[in-house]
Amino acid sequence: MKPTSPAEAESAFYSAFGSGDHMRMMAVWATAEDLVCVHPMGPRLDSRDVISASWQQILAGEPQRIFDIHLKASWGDTNIAVRVVDEIISVPRSGLQFAPVIATNVYKFTDNGWFMIAHHASIDAASNRDVRDSEPAHTRH
Amino acid sequence: MKPTSPAEAESAFYSAFGSGDHMRMMAVWATAEDLVCVHPMGPRLDSRDVISASWQQILAGEPQRIFDIHLKASWGDTNIAVRVVDEIISVPRSGLQFAPVIATNVYKFTDNGWFMIAHHASIDAASNRDVRDSEPAHTRH
Repeated sequence: MKPTSPAEAESAFYSAFGSGDHMRMMAVWATAEDLVCVHPMGPRLDSRDVISASWQQILAGEPQRIFDIHLKASWGDTNIAVRVVDEIISVPRSGLQFAPVIATNVYKFTDNGWFMIAHHASIDAASNRDVRDSEPAHTRH
Repeated sequence: MKPTSPAEAESAFYSAFGSGDHMRMMAVWATAEDLVCVHPMGPRLDSRDVISASWQQILAGEPQRIFDIHLKASWGDTNIAVRVVDEIISVPRSGLQFAPVIATNVYKFTDNGWFMIAHHASIDAASNRDVRDSEPAHTRH
């Protein structure tokens, strides 16, 4: 299936991520392009093989995650699109929910549609915690 | 001066960053656009005022940094450009040198030239250390 928009490619990315589906995850990424993937606190990965191996490991570690994705900024052009999202991630198996991971996702239009070329994710150290049942920081005293 | 390319805007960004020049730093950023700035381990900042205040604080903390910038990937289009760089940062005052900060920088073309609209920086936790005089990891035993 040809992803006809950056939003559709992004939706496929988080669907594959959430369901731990490595094959669908790698189908979201472009082939024959420079790629960049930075997982939170991780190094810059730049080859499709290394990126694929990193996802294999991450997805195997947790077969189901629920993503609540908030699009915070997006810029588009004919062939390149950038989307910055907050990812609120819940892990049903453990019951944990984490404060936002910030991701900058970049997509490129090719003859076969829109594909991911970069995923740069990071954690806000001040708010990275299990957020279930915790009061908002400003109400603490 | 009108930045005529993403590379020129990026050069102005690191020049301002390195010399602690807040006014020149903010001249690199677009006005009247959605903006995103994520400092390493930090939250997603999204207004020009908040981004400006963050740079004020960072630049005031260290008046001189030397940046050795390695462009690792770039994608461009008529109006949007994305550049992923490794930033090797040396601080002359302390003599410290840090392993790469990874930055995804996004630029937009406006009537006045190319301006920064997003800067997403993160640290590789495994390699973030003072790298002076340290052996490469693979030679340790």
